[in-house]
Amino acid sequence: MGQVGWKGLCLSLFDYKTEKYVIAKNKKVGILYRVVQLSILAYLVGWVFVVKKGYQDSDTSIQSSVITKLKGVAFTNTSELGERLWDVADYVIPPQGENIFFVMTNLIVTPNQRQDTCSESTGIRDALCSKNRDCPAGEAVIAGNGVKTGRCLKVGSNTNGTCEILAWCPVEKKSKTKKPLLANAENFTVYIKNSIRFPKFKFSKTNVLNTDDDSYLKNCHYSAQHLYCPIFHLGKLVSWAGNNFQDMASEGGVIGIQIEWDCDLDKPPSECNPHYSFSRLDNKFAEKSISSGYNFRFAKYYRDAEGVEYRTLIKAYGIRFDVMVNGKAGKFNIIPTIINVGSGLALMGAGAFFCDVVLLYLMKKSNFYRGKKYEEVKSSSRKSLPGGTVNGNQNSESLATLEQLRQLQTVET
Amino acid sequence: MGQVGWKGLCLSLFDYKTEKYVIAKNKKVGILYRVVQLSILAYLVGWVFVVKKGYQDSDTSIQSSVITKLKGVAFTNTSELGERLWDVADYVIPPQGENIFFVMTNLIVTPNQRQDTCSESTGIRDALCSKNRDCPAGEAVIAGNGVKTGRCLKVGSNTNGTCEILAWCPVEKKSKTKKPLLANAENFTVYIKNSIRFPKFKFSKTNVLNTDDDSYLKNCHYSAQHLYCPIFHLGKLVSWAGNNFQDMASEGGVIGIQIEWDCDLDKPPSECNPHYSFSRLDNKFAEKSISSGYNFRFAKYYRDAEGVEYRTLIKAYGIRFDVMVNGKAGKFNIIPTIINVGSGLALMGAGAFFCDVVLLYLMKKSNFYRGKKYEEVKSSSRKSLPGGTVNGNQNSESLATLEQLRQLQTVET
Amino acid sequence: MGQVGWKGLCLSLFDYKTEKYVIAKNKKVGILYRVVQLSILAYLVGWVFVVKKGYQDSDTSIQSSVITKLKGVAFTNTSELGERLWDVADYVIPPQGENIFFVMTNLIVTPNQRQDTCSESTGIRDALCSKNRDCPAGEAVIAGNGVKTGRCLKVGSNTNGTCEILAWCPVEKKSKTKKPLLANAENFTVYIKNSIRFPKFKFSKTNVLNTDDDSYLKNCHYSAQHLYCPIFHLGKLVSWAGNNFQDMASEGGVIGIQIEWDCDLDKPPSECNPHYSFSRLDNKFAEKSISSGYNFRFAKYYRDAEGVEYRTLIKAYGIRFDVMVNGKAGKFNIIPTIINVGSGLALMGAGAFFCDVVLLYLMKKSNFYRGKKYEEVKSSSRKSLPGGTVNGNQNSESLATLEQLRQLQTVET
Repeated sequence: MGQVGWKGLCLSLFDYKTEKYVIAKNKKVGILYRVVQLSILAYLVGWVFVVKKGYQDSDTSIQSSVITKLKGVAFTNTSELGERLWDVADYVIPPQGENIFFVMTNLIVTPNQRQDTCSESTGIRDALCSKNRDCPAGEAVIAGNGVKTGRCLKVGSNTNGTCEILAWCPVEKKSKTKKPLLANAENFTVYIKNSIRFPKFKFSKTNVLNTDDDSYLKNCHYSAQHLYCPIFHLGKLVSWAGNNFQDMASEGGVIGIQIEWDCDLDKPPSECNPHYSFSRLDNKFAEKSISSGYNFRFAKYYRDAEGVEYRTLIKAYGIRFDVMVNGKAGKFNIIPTIINVGSGLALMGAGAFFCDVVLLYLMKKSNFYRGKKYEEVKSSSRKSLPGGTVNGNQNSESLATLEQLRQLQTVET
Repeated sequence: MGQVGWKGLCLSLFDYKTEKYVIAKNKKVGILYRVVQLSILAYLVGWVFVVKKGYQDSDTSIQSSVITKLKGVAFTNTSELGERLWDVADYVIPPQGENIFFVMTNLIVTPNQRQDTCSESTGIRDALCSKNRDCPAGEAVIAGNGVKTGRCLKVGSNTNGTCEILAWCPVEKKSKTKKPLLANAENFTVYIKNSIRFPKFKFSKTNVLNTDDDSYLKNCHYSAQHLYCPIFHLGKLVSWAGNNFQDMASEGGVIGIQIEWDCDLDKPPSECNPHYSFSRLDNKFAEKSISSGYNFRFAKYYRDAEGVEYRTLIKAYGIRFDVMVNGKAGKFNIIPTIINVGSGLALMGAGAFFCDVVLLYLMKKSNFYRGKKYEEVKSSSRKSLPGGTVNGNQNSESLATLEQLRQLQTVET
Repeated sequence: MGQVGWKGLCLSLFDYKTEKYVIAKNKKVGILYRVVQLSILAYLVGWVFVVKKGYQDSDTSIQSSVITKLKGVAFTNTSELGERLWDVADYVIPPQGENIFFVMTNLIVTPNQRQDTCSESTGIRDALCSKNRDCPAGEAVIAGNGVKTGRCLKVGSNTNGTCEILAWCPVEKKSKTKKPLLANAENFTVYIKNSIRFPKFKFSKTNVLNTDDDSYLKNCHYSAQHLYCPIFHLGKLVSWAGNNFQDMASEGGVIGIQIEWDCDLDKPPSECNPHYSFSRLDNKFAEKSISSGYNFRFAKYYRDAEGVEYRTLIKAYGIRFDVMVNGKAGKFNIIPTIINVGSGLALMGAGAFFCDVVLLYLMKKSNFYRGKKYEEVKSSSRKSLPGGTVNGNQNSESLATLEQLRQLQTVET
């Protein structure tokens, strides 16, 4: 060791060390290994890279802004409301055109409600009574419209009556037309503008054709040919979601309009297109339960000449449209590429391990190969001789067998 | 080489090459290596696969639709408003039942406001004046209610007064009842229907029991036993968020209702259940700052007989409920599985490297093992002899030592 | 084998097996390998760990709650409306201060609309007529305001007229002031409170300074110095988005306020700060198309002394502000760390493979190195002799060459 100086030590840093391999001329295992290698490669290239785009970094935190605008008028002629025309300001709630909008298609109007006492609506169990004591004053009617005054109102000579309540009187009648009032809403159109942005990649796009042609957006309708004309016919929106507009208009419901942006930003921006899908979101199966349909109550408040407030209560049935935007953008990035390549290569090691097991334990001459692969060195020998390994092989074979099997078992656990 | 034809070349493709190993009969390092192997396996199986479900592909871009509906009435009797009953159309804003809803619990009503001139409310610094010049005409009062007219209004013989403003007059009085007006809102109930969908896995579910039993949803309340009855008592919602309803009702606040769907789609759909949690979202700690509480102003507009507009301004205090849905679905997928297995196997290589260092540098007989592991071949020798390596070992030991240490250092950097 | 009992088998479990290496004293390849190793290490440490924080688990499913509140009054004096003061209850829609709010800056008011018959507004192509038959009764005017009554109204002796319609009459005049009515809205301020939570890490924060100082939030404005004072001047918000408030106020538009929380939770919470950015979301480029600007119609409903409903229709132009919150939190986690380290190590194997190719096929003495690296064993030989490998090398060289090249090709495919 004395002959080797610092110079040698430094130089040895740049010696190249490479693993020593044993070539086993066994065609069966050789073919097996090639098959395993090719499978892993096919998986890596075909599935991970081509199909799943494993070389891309992805951004799913999309920023989205939705502007909606409805168009259309409907004419109704009922005994209650007379001839009436409904325009956008009447039937769209809320008016400001956000990503959730509601189109009123049916309604129960209870006009001229005032703070007063009247009879609770029939059919509410908690308001049934036979004597005044059944209506304790000040108690709210459960699932009702007001607070009991302490009187039991009976019609004629009936023994059973209904509690008198303090409420907005008269109370709402529980009836609505089976045929939706605004059946014509089917022909309304809605313009849905969606601007999106992937902050990670600083990529923006909208779903509206950027055209100078004024008339395009006035006349087009969304279709496969007009992917960038986001003007939808309400009836078609509902039918695309697998429902009938007239059925739905009567009881109300919720339609989800999903806009999906699945963008491969390694391609030109024109390849990043919105994909629309439509589905019904309220539970249409449980038809009679509280969970199907969609309605809510709101009121318009007025004051009479004396300044007393009165209101028109409207129970609005209709279709709520929820525009939901989600998206994913992918762009080449070295980190996921390396993670995937690295894992693939590590898998090759697992393949080699599997073939080793076949070669060393399942082949006829496995003893011979084991001896070649494993070179036993005994630390008890003072000086190992070049030929020592050959003899050692004889003894170590059975040991190595067990050893390899154990290794196999542990890995397979 | 002449004897080996193309046939041989082709056949050699299917020779199997396997790494040559040296068996070091050193129990200490052997045990160490087994321990390392077992630790990595335990980590891989126990933590990555069992706990973290590393074999699953996950989808966090949940699509969600929320429908909310409130029930309940409250009776109030104040000198200002007289006997009044409040129902859903009165206290819920906005009425349409989306994922954010507000329940009014306290209010300052300023009725009969008209466009007029009047005195700015006292207490606004910018409107304090001693002479008309302090109130330049046309200037808006900072943090006030109107535009100065140029006059300084003084009460009696005071030297200090308040600017006259053009505004909706009379201006709002800065006082509200300490006890919330609609204290009874505590007993209201809210029905929160949430339909979700994981687009990647095409999996949908709602948080409402799909039952034929009409009465179930009319009578049930949410509890651990009734996980699929999403009908909540407002008072309990607030208490679950760690607050007192009456305290909160006075100043207002925001309650977050988090619905979390953590679904393992390798299990049956019935195992994918919503998990509710409740928290207060406005800053309750900074009680006196602008940042706590929740209120907003809105107006009801009326016209008198002459067609002149007047309004009732309402400063509404109350509790806003934000229903926030988030979720994650996982399903077995080969790619993350392979990434995790691959990384685990690569880690085994790191474990072997660590044990090598122990064996080759920290053991007594490390010199001997180094000689066995590294077989030096000199390119300067014309023909290497089988026994050459043995002699070579003697010289290369010290070189290999340095070499290995360098390697160790670089890796550990 | 008889001498080796069970005890020996068990002991052999703890023999340590280590790969046998061949040291090639070739400085070129040695240096190449060191360079490859260092590059991979530099990439792993520098890029994956320091820049991309590959050792962190990330949570992008942020829970966010936004409360907004506007302040400011504006005075207008028009022939139509007279002197009028606009306060928060007048110009903010919806009033409740959620994450999307709209500030009205210009409007077309059509007062005293009643259900009646009148002439459709001129300029709508579908309502042009020359005789009554051009206006079939009951047909809705496309893109119009009502339903045709069957009469064609002509002014004077014109041959062309406009269909009479049943509608809310009179219909809206298509004109608005070029100069925005509420130009002063530029000076309004908005307070945007945002509370966020990362559910995975149970970390919450708000964008408001948690101070006891009452006056701080009353006087501060958002700036680089006051990052935790989220009070914004509307004019500045618009200019930060690269637009002019007065231009935008006339036609309306949508401004996105992005709040980004990019939090490294391995650092103290005070390092997790919101980052604001502002952008215009409606398409300002296509100025004349339907896709630029932002407006919507709403109505205020009144009843006259006879109880007949009439309304004031308002076409509101203005700026909608969408507060969009997104965020990402990262925290040290062992799994991504191991995935990244594992892939890096696997990559080292790829580097070694590359150097092997150089050594074994591109070097002068590559034949010699190949012979050393690959030790051929023939299963046909009954007993392999220690010296056998040396002779075998001579024959296997060419085979190995082809074999290695194939391996290279397959990997590079």
